[in-house]
Amino acid sequence: MSVGSEGRIPVAVLGATGAVGQTFIRLLEGHPFLEVSELAASERSAGRLYREAMSWHEGKLPEHLMDLTVLPCDPGAVKSKVVFSALDSSVAGSVEQAFARAGAVVLSNAKNHRMDADVPLVIPEVNADHLMLIDRQKEARGWEGAIITNSNCAVAPMTMALAPLHAAFGVRQAVMVTLQAISGAGYPGVPSLDILGNVIPHIPGEEEKIEPELNKMLGELEAGQVVNAPIIVSTHCNRVPVQHGHTVCMTLGFESSAGPEEVLEAMSEWQGHSICKGLPSAPSPPLVVRPEVNRPQARKDVDEGAGMAVVVGRVRSDPLMDVSLTAMAHNTVRGAAGGSILNAEVLGRMGRLPGVTEGAW
Amino acid sequence: MSVGSEGRIPVAVLGATGAVGQTFIRLLEGHPFLEVSELAASERSAGRLYREAMSWHEGKLPEHLMDLTVLPCDPGAVKSKVVFSALDSSVAGSVEQAFARAGAVVLSNAKNHRMDADVPLVIPEVNADHLMLIDRQKEARGWEGAIITNSNCAVAPMTMALAPLHAAFGVRQAVMVTLQAISGAGYPGVPSLDILGNVIPHIPGEEEKIEPELNKMLGELEAGQVVNAPIIVSTHCNRVPVQHGHTVCMTLGFESSAGPEEVLEAMSEWQGHSICKGLPSAPSPPLVVRPEVNRPQARKDVDEGAGMAVVVGRVRSDPLMDVSLTAMAHNTVRGAAGGSILNAEVLGRMGRLPGVTEGAW
Amino acid sequence: MSVGSEGRIPVAVLGATGAVGQTFIRLLEGHPFLEVSELAASERSAGRLYREAMSWHEGKLPEHLMDLTVLPCDPGAVKSKVVFSALDSSVAGSVEQAFARAGAVVLSNAKNHRMDADVPLVIPEVNADHLMLIDRQKEARGWEGAIITNSNCAVAPMTMALAPLHAAFGVRQAVMVTLQAISGAGYPGVPSLDILGNVIPHIPGEEEKIEPELNKMLGELEAGQVVNAPIIVSTHCNRVPVQHGHTVCMTLGFESSAGPEEVLEAMSEWQGHSICKGLPSAPSPPLVVRPEVNRPQARKDVDEGAGMAVVVGRVRSDPLMDVSLTAMAHNTVRGAAGGSILNAEVLGRMGRLPGVTEGAW
Amino acid sequence: MSVGSEGRIPVAVLGATGAVGQTFIRLLEGHPFLEVSELAASERSAGRLYREAMSWHEGKLPEHLMDLTVLPCDPGAVKSKVVFSALDSSVAGSVEQAFARAGAVVLSNAKNHRMDADVPLVIPEVNADHLMLIDRQKEARGWEGAIITNSNCAVAPMTMALAPLHAAFGVRQAVMVTLQAISGAGYPGVPSLDILGNVIPHIPGEEEKIEPELNKMLGELEAGQVVNAPIIVSTHCNRVPVQHGHTVCMTLGFESSAGPEEVLEAMSEWQGHSICKGLPSAPSPPLVVRPEVNRPQARKDVDEGAGMAVVVGRVRSDPLMDVSLTAMAHNTVRGAAGGSILNAEVLGRMGRLPGVTEGAW
Repeated sequence: MSVGSEGRIPVAVLGATGAVGQTFIRLLEGHPFLEVSELAASERSAGRLYREAMSWHEGKLPEHLMDLTVLPCDPGAVKSKVVFSALDSSVAGSVEQAFARAGAVVLSNAKNHRMDADVPLVIPEVNADHLMLIDRQKEARGWEGAIITNSNCAVAPMTMALAPLHAAFGVRQAVMVTLQAISGAGYPGVPSLDILGNVIPHIPGEEEKIEPELNKMLGELEAGQVVNAPIIVSTHCNRVPVQHGHTVCMTLGFESSAGPEEVLEAMSEWQGHSICKGLPSAPSPPLVVRPEVNRPQARKDVDEGAGMAVVVGRVRSDPLMDVSLTAMAHNTVRGAAGGSILNAEVLGRMGRLPGVTEGAW
Repeated sequence: MSVGSEGRIPVAVLGATGAVGQTFIRLLEGHPFLEVSELAASERSAGRLYREAMSWHEGKLPEHLMDLTVLPCDPGAVKSKVVFSALDSSVAGSVEQAFARAGAVVLSNAKNHRMDADVPLVIPEVNADHLMLIDRQKEARGWEGAIITNSNCAVAPMTMALAPLHAAFGVRQAVMVTLQAISGAGYPGVPSLDILGNVIPHIPGEEEKIEPELNKMLGELEAGQVVNAPIIVSTHCNRVPVQHGHTVCMTLGFESSAGPEEVLEAMSEWQGHSICKGLPSAPSPPLVVRPEVNRPQARKDVDEGAGMAVVVGRVRSDPLMDVSLTAMAHNTVRGAAGGSILNAEVLGRMGRLPGVTEGAW
Repeated sequence: MSVGSEGRIPVAVLGATGAVGQTFIRLLEGHPFLEVSELAASERSAGRLYREAMSWHEGKLPEHLMDLTVLPCDPGAVKSKVVFSALDSSVAGSVEQAFARAGAVVLSNAKNHRMDADVPLVIPEVNADHLMLIDRQKEARGWEGAIITNSNCAVAPMTMALAPLHAAFGVRQAVMVTLQAISGAGYPGVPSLDILGNVIPHIPGEEEKIEPELNKMLGELEAGQVVNAPIIVSTHCNRVPVQHGHTVCMTLGFESSAGPEEVLEAMSEWQGHSICKGLPSAPSPPLVVRPEVNRPQARKDVDEGAGMAVVVGRVRSDPLMDVSLTAMAHNTVRGAAGGSILNAEVLGRMGRLPGVTEGAW
Repeated sequence: MSVGSEGRIPVAVLGATGAVGQTFIRLLEGHPFLEVSELAASERSAGRLYREAMSWHEGKLPEHLMDLTVLPCDPGAVKSKVVFSALDSSVAGSVEQAFARAGAVVLSNAKNHRMDADVPLVIPEVNADHLMLIDRQKEARGWEGAIITNSNCAVAPMTMALAPLHAAFGVRQAVMVTLQAISGAGYPGVPSLDILGNVIPHIPGEEEKIEPELNKMLGELEAGQVVNAPIIVSTHCNRVPVQHGHTVCMTLGFESSAGPEEVLEAMSEWQGHSICKGLPSAPSPPLVVRPEVNRPQARKDVDEGAGMAVVVGRVRSDPLMDVSLTAMAHNTVRGAAGGSILNAEVLGRMGRLPGVTEGAW
């Protein structure tokens, strides 16, 4: 296969013109192992220069990609064997399958395949071992490639905050109330007339994803299958006038009794799965516990760990269940593009990316 | 006693220069029964014209009050026997007592006396009968006047939303997560650098008030004492960049089984205590149930019922408890000044305001 | 012709589902002379109930209109002879002509015909006499009806603030820098990701309208034609995260020397054209001059005169020209729907609306 | 004198607990030549640990400074001979003089001495040569040290945008309308109730500074004195709900005729004074000209050049003067702490900082 400059693996971004696609590009700029070499998008954009196909962008995009011709989202046109998918769910399902069938490892941010039994849904600090599902997936589907997904952006901070607690105390039930940033809705996304100085107490399709995705990621891999965790989750999802950073207020009940001190200790000590250690996108530590009474705050803490850490605070005793706390994470980095990139890094280290030798990273 | 113009009862506002004080004045402008005739404030302001004592104001204040001389918060200087207190809690305790001792009926928005056993804490649609506590208060304290309080601004929508549900199904437990407007912190209040494009996951002193105030108001008056309701309440209080309107995400567990349909029916039919009927500040209905999936919204619904209604939406089944819903109310109207004014109106109708005959209103 | 309830004139709103269309409906609710009896919109909406054709609305709309069937924007389907047009400029041109040809008086908020020599562009306090252009228009075009336009939303506060100054001192040149609210872009309009915590220093198509519209309205009607005013205008249009209310910073140079005192006097005394006096939508006074150093402010002053007044402040001497000041007006009321309605009221009083006798209003 | 670690010059920050003081500390973290070794603040803070003396902070501050004991703002207590002053103007005047008298080079962000004839007011890309005023200052005042000031935060983008234009065409007159970020007011600064969803058309004391500071910096040094530029400047200063980044809409008239092309060329080619070249805080280029019609935008462009560049856009012909454009700069970096630091770097390169050899940097 072709090799990127300086030995980096060439990758493609599908859905490159949208908000998440652009985030992939920004985060991959300067990546030590991966190099964006192809950009693909919808029919409307294909064939145009990337610079012209984007009607909008946030922040700076690498000048050297601006004059790439946008490719169609078609494995016949895209040569990279490592593909990041920022596709809209209206098209992601079949396009991602076509790429996997054609031999690509597809790291997808789309919801379409997350709950497929043979598709790993992974936050690698939490469940890197689930990546082994791709063996079953390849076999069952007869694919040379595979699809690996990351979670919904609001589920990411929940899963990471709960991982050490579920391991230590068994999380039995949770009330999760989110205050989600506008960037979670993409671009153009939320009209300013709807959200300026306002709260919208509903996000279409969001609450339904939380319990299943959380329980899949916190589940155990047994005999090549994920046995979901049994946490009962009550959810309220709210949109708030914040640019980046989803805040989650959690009230948690455990199987075995634990109070704030035990929870703080479990969180502070948690390092996540050791395979992530030292990878370029792996934050260290994955959970940052703040002692202040009024943290985490989206605007102030969102870039913690280069946007990949989950920031936790307000761990306290709860009169109804066991413990209450607040967690926050960057929704387009940890909760979207950054999560996919870290999945790719772990797969590479495992020798499961085309062109990468196990342990080379 | 002196009588205001057109037979209206003259009233004083203590703490008249602050944000809540100004809200009292605005809401009382044009009131059919009550007329602001005295304004009192701290030493710093006393003796100055009201126009000059205020360094800031929101919205328009009545021109005819602007040239009143601000009085000290001293019952020797203030003649009105109906007194609204917008005092800061650092001084409200003793000042309100002094006025009650001197024969005034004090309608207080301050927290100081809310939990005193002989002081009514009242949202009259919910617990107008608790007003009878003033007989015990007067007797126990040897006062001619009395202190009547209204609740914390975030507790108001909780109490009103729960009142019909507690009556019908017995609320056993609740998780209450608030998204509170900046006006709840008064002026200057929250610095813009802290809240613009941000969420602050803590409000000093707020969470502690919720369970006790809610349970006192939902309690039963038995043998002249309030027997508190036994609801276990878990709370998270957040500040959000919204001007007015506190939103509360509630997850509720009942004693007797009830689902969304029963809850919707109970809320839609609820009229509140009949003594409120037709009073100038009483919204009709007190709960406005919206069918849309994304309401209530603070900016769009905050003026429902002239700011005195609680707007409810998203009533749905909950996997963990029984029902989830979202409620919202105007924090400086229903949750502060407007609540005090409605308490005064009810007291007047009961014949418990100096100078007002029972049933005259 | 048919007559509305209580003798009110029935009117239609074209483009009724959009943001400006809804503002027309809200402002006309309870109007003493005019009654919305027909709603028309694009093909996509025609034939549906109004309630269902709107995917979004701001504030409350009258319940009694919700079950009207939306009509197509076709004079064959719409019977009202007084028609308010909130149409998008992509269709307004031909549709408004068709209605005028069919005998309707069309009060248009669209830009299409504003600069036609025989179409009045009117803020009636300023140039009600320009309404006489409709005689020429009818004759020239052979129409029974006519088109009357109101100005761009940012031009409205400029024109009203300058009217008394141009009359008194002759405005020679002006630098106009606007800070415009998001509601000026309609719905969905400005994406929140673009404007939250930001300023956008450009509004497509806006700056080009300012000098010509301002000079047409401040021009003199001579021999049946408008002779434009000769003011040279430099403009910068900015979008800011404000819901309603366009602020304009003005630096003004006059023909005859005048300073802040003269300007303040001219503005304070200005009553506007006498034909507006007492009309339902006419603010009194049309210019509200605030003495505070930090007014007008959009959020605090936008509802002055029920949204129809222009609020002016910071009148001061300018080192470069003569005087600087800041003006602000409600962009969807004074600058759009309210302006059209006031134009209709003036035409009615002049006996120029079908079914209304001169002087009856 | 003492030397910091790795040969870096030790510096003190006066007013270290405030918003600008913290920005100094953040920007100096990791500086190759300068090292914060002393923190000083008001009596209230002196003697406490820095960590405890700050009631608030934005972003992360270096952990290794947190346990420094805050010193009083007294040259007897502060040993560093390079001192950054983030003092409030109520105390800056005498304190800065005391430090200069005691031999320190004081790089001040305060307004107190900016207009003193023998105090340089410097943006070094524009007028590094004015730094020679310190010779006259030392001599006239008999000081071993000196005071060097940087400009008001809104004047910084004006001066940098005008520098190449004034050199090339002679700027004769300018209308400057600012849209200024809330961080310009420090902390707690602007109350959120005043600015959320609003524009405040006035900033106390701001407009008065613009013409004199701009003309001093664009003036020529002749015979050891600054001969001010003669630009007549009309100003409107507005506060907008933006976190960082002051936007300035400029309308400019030149001595010699020039249009947008000439202006664009002059700006694009401008490199600023060569002495800045390669210094750690010097952006390259100092002016970033954006071709898009809707740039610069505060939120998107504020970090250009690590917050030290001025971003310019919308250069166009003006009907009244010559050219209009919009400029934007980071107000707490380029317009405050970063500007002072760059002044220090230039002084160091000139051999005018205690302990630094000319040309060593």
